[in-house]
Amino acid sequence: MQRVRYAFLFTSGDPSPLRMDNWYMAEEKLPTRAEDFSEWYNQLVLRAQLADYAPVRGCMVVRPYGWALWENIQQGLDRRFKATGHQNVAFPLLIPRSFIDKEKHHVEGFSPELAVVTIGGGEELAEPLVIRPTSETIIGHMWSKWIQSYRDLPVLMNQWNSVVRWELRTKLFLRTLEFYWQEGHTAHATQQEAMDETRQMLDVYTDFAVNDAAIPVIPGRKSDAEKFAGADITYSIEAMMGDGKALQSGTSHYLGQNFAQAFEVRYLDQGGQLQHCWTTSWGLSTRVIGAVIMVHGDDQGLVLPPKLAPYQAVIVPIFKTDEEKASVLSAAKQLKIELAKAEIRVTLDEREGQSPGWKFNDWEMRGVPVRVELGPKDVAKQAAVLARRDRPGKEGKISAPLADLPSTIQRLLGEIHQSMHDKALAFRKSNTHDTKDYEELKKAVETGFAFAFWCGNADCEAKIKDETRATMRCIPLEQPGGTGKCVYCGQSAGERAIFGRAY
Amino acid sequence: MQRVRYAFLFTSGDPSPLRMDNWYMAEEKLPTRAEDFSEWYNQLVLRAQLADYAPVRGCMVVRPYGWALWENIQQGLDRRFKATGHQNVAFPLLIPRSFIDKEKHHVEGFSPELAVVTIGGGEELAEPLVIRPTSETIIGHMWSKWIQSYRDLPVLMNQWNSVVRWELRTKLFLRTLEFYWQEGHTAHATQQEAMDETRQMLDVYTDFAVNDAAIPVIPGRKSDAEKFAGADITYSIEAMMGDGKALQSGTSHYLGQNFAQAFEVRYLDQGGQLQHCWTTSWGLSTRVIGAVIMVHGDDQGLVLPPKLAPYQAVIVPIFKTDEEKASVLSAAKQLKIELAKAEIRVTLDEREGQSPGWKFNDWEMRGVPVRVELGPKDVAKQAAVLARRDRPGKEGKISAPLADLPSTIQRLLGEIHQSMHDKALAFRKSNTHDTKDYEELKKAVETGFAFAFWCGNADCEAKIKDETRATMRCIPLEQPGGTGKCVYCGQSAGERAIFGRAY
Repeated sequence: MQRVRYAFLFTSGDPSPLRMDNWYMAEEKLPTRAEDFSEWYNQLVLRAQLADYAPVRGCMVVRPYGWALWENIQQGLDRRFKATGHQNVAFPLLIPRSFIDKEKHHVEGFSPELAVVTIGGGEELAEPLVIRPTSETIIGHMWSKWIQSYRDLPVLMNQWNSVVRWELRTKLFLRTLEFYWQEGHTAHATQQEAMDETRQMLDVYTDFAVNDAAIPVIPGRKSDAEKFAGADITYSIEAMMGDGKALQSGTSHYLGQNFAQAFEVRYLDQGGQLQHCWTTSWGLSTRVIGAVIMVHGDDQGLVLPPKLAPYQAVIVPIFKTDEEKASVLSAAKQLKIELAKAEIRVTLDEREGQSPGWKFNDWEMRGVPVRVELGPKDVAKQAAVLARRDRPGKEGKISAPLADLPSTIQRLLGEIHQSMHDKALAFRKSNTHDTKDYEELKKAVETGFAFAFWCGNADCEAKIKDETRATMRCIPLEQPGGTGKCVYCGQSAGERAIFGRAY
Repeated sequence: MQRVRYAFLFTSGDPSPLRMDNWYMAEEKLPTRAEDFSEWYNQLVLRAQLADYAPVRGCMVVRPYGWALWENIQQGLDRRFKATGHQNVAFPLLIPRSFIDKEKHHVEGFSPELAVVTIGGGEELAEPLVIRPTSETIIGHMWSKWIQSYRDLPVLMNQWNSVVRWELRTKLFLRTLEFYWQEGHTAHATQQEAMDETRQMLDVYTDFAVNDAAIPVIPGRKSDAEKFAGADITYSIEAMMGDGKALQSGTSHYLGQNFAQAFEVRYLDQGGQLQHCWTTSWGLSTRVIGAVIMVHGDDQGLVLPPKLAPYQAVIVPIFKTDEEKASVLSAAKQLKIELAKAEIRVTLDEREGQSPGWKFNDWEMRGVPVRVELGPKDVAKQAAVLARRDRPGKEGKISAPLADLPSTIQRLLGEIHQSMHDKALAFRKSNTHDTKDYEELKKAVETGFAFAFWCGNADCEAKIKDETRATMRCIPLEQPGGTGKCVYCGQSAGERAIFGRAY
């Protein structure tokens, strides 16, 4: 075997060490959320070094701390996709322009948003290519080649990539020209299977949001006006942000036979008949990072859910003399090893020239769930002080023996997750109003969601949007039952919908 | 906590179940490698369903089996990058055209290969954008903003993405318009640190090739003619394929201050002086899948190295009667659970309507390292027959008790890895010739590598290339020492270089 010498110049015990640049002034306070929620968000994304503006309008650079968060989101989802039988693939970035035209609703929806490559290798292209805005068309094209028989079905695929949509108004993570996501695509022999898959993936997103991101979401059906261009039915999960606005955080589309017909995706059934497939697609993007920020964040900065946090715990050593420094750092390093063994993502803040108080603020702003404070007295007692990010001040502090820290922190992380989820749910509930009439709806959407009967007519929906800037977020799957009168026109209505202003 | 009902319609115990479409005729033999190596390769990539041709010329679709292989490659590398202190990030796909022009060698090298976006959102763009062919320029631009002080250094970044280069002659995995890779980018305070980093990452690639891909490689320095556009020094790892040709399988570039000067990437040193950074970049792409195929494959198909194989073991049940079927499948399912517990990536081939012999051939073609044959007699004896993919026929078969299979297969996978590596190394050695004169070199490059003294003159290199179609692959880091005469001009030479025809 060939021997390799390793230099390991910058070796670190961290799973993904994050060096923290200090180019922003830690003393400058963030605006509070009450003062200016939008500016609080923008500054926090930059200061916590989650992302930055790219030189091309509307594009972003995702920085190490932001990408580590996304990697944890990816792992949580990818595990669920594989457990439900999906396989990862990679379809190309470039799609012939003519493909987009083959499905009539798809072309209407996406044509205005395309980035078009007209020159390749120094020459004008005979047919322009578009950068994928989503991949239904090219996948349909390939499936028409691969799928022959009922034995080839179902086809259950997913890909992690980025797509480009020429958005005019952009905001980091929430709406950018290029964004990162996963797009799942499946083909089935029957309508029922495709509908079941669509709903299953909505369940997967809901499960991820609740159990990994600590974000309570409302799974529901989109109105025709809001559905995906080319879908028969679009489902989404909707979350309420800290300012009462809605964020669509994942969508699952039942595409019927629309793309199968446009791209001739057919199979021979068991009776030897040629049939069109039934297809689905579903996606969740880096928008969800925006949701994590806006659902959980407070005036001090990020509050990251333990399952997704790049660091679940940070050890801040406290000392004055060189003697204290030696003893505290030695204990801190040992503690870091013990916590890492217990599979806690942990870092030790050894930065020179910054006070413990400065470091507390810095890590609070970055949203690390548990801070471990370790000073000479703690070391003498073989204990440490733990501070919960989700409960600022003394209320969130406990002292625990060093030997118990791995299990104590594990338990704490579970409690923090639950507590963050419950707090967000309570906030949403207290800002969601069952509205009986239009006046109540108009008032409700000023600060949160309105839950109101809707007749199903697109005109009512459009007028509500024009007059209140609130869109129909979804018709929740969970309905209290009964019938009532449409909140706009007063006609009889069988379902209630969520209305809210949205990102 | 919100409860989520899971349908798990298509649940499977596999980490990534791969359904096998049967659209190709398994009976059709591959061409042998001796008959037509190139066609053997092309057909194998398609038949093993690693990849397929996309509708856009020169682009590929990576299918589930191919992408699972790439995911294992990614994990092996990502672990090493993080262990050496690198952090993952995401820089945008779109780069202003003018950025490419800022580094004079970079623009010469990449201008002819650019894909250019001229239309966005239905309008002609004021400045055209290029799809990244590589990201030095946009990263330099962002670094100039982020890097202020020596405290911010080193910056050690990596990103997993795809890039586009308008290649004219393409071949699946080896050269495609769009390809998948990682690109590492680092900035340092000193020249020495940047040079050490460049060499360290070459070591990381070498370690990965040898220990994960079972591919012996020659680490070395590229000639000026072959180096990266914008680099001061390019190192590469070079591997010999099964036809004696070379494949560059990973590169690490010392960029000096070229990009730091072009993009004003500067820092204040400890003395308060403004200094330009020293930078590096390094990349390894889906080409390496081509190397895995061409180094290890045989006339029956793929032979996958155990560390990278999507499935390390496949269980093929053998039965005739329904009674046998019940007992064999029950034992096979239990065995699959036991192997999965031992962290062996395993699948059970339950396909109906195909004979065991057909399945043997199919999995041989797909290169699964260990086949487990399980029939009624085996079940009665509580044993199974194991067949090694790397040793066809009886020689590679052993019988082992079912209870021992997890440890037996684990051991076998280690042996297979070692054996595949040693076989490839022996092949390379027997096809590499120390050549004293030009006639010997011309003969050597017909079937493999020539290792010859070279004076360092680009003219000699160019003439050798013109006359023999062999390029200077690298000047190996490991030199036998001494001096000699240039194989082309006869001038005195201090180093020996590898010459070979290359993909």
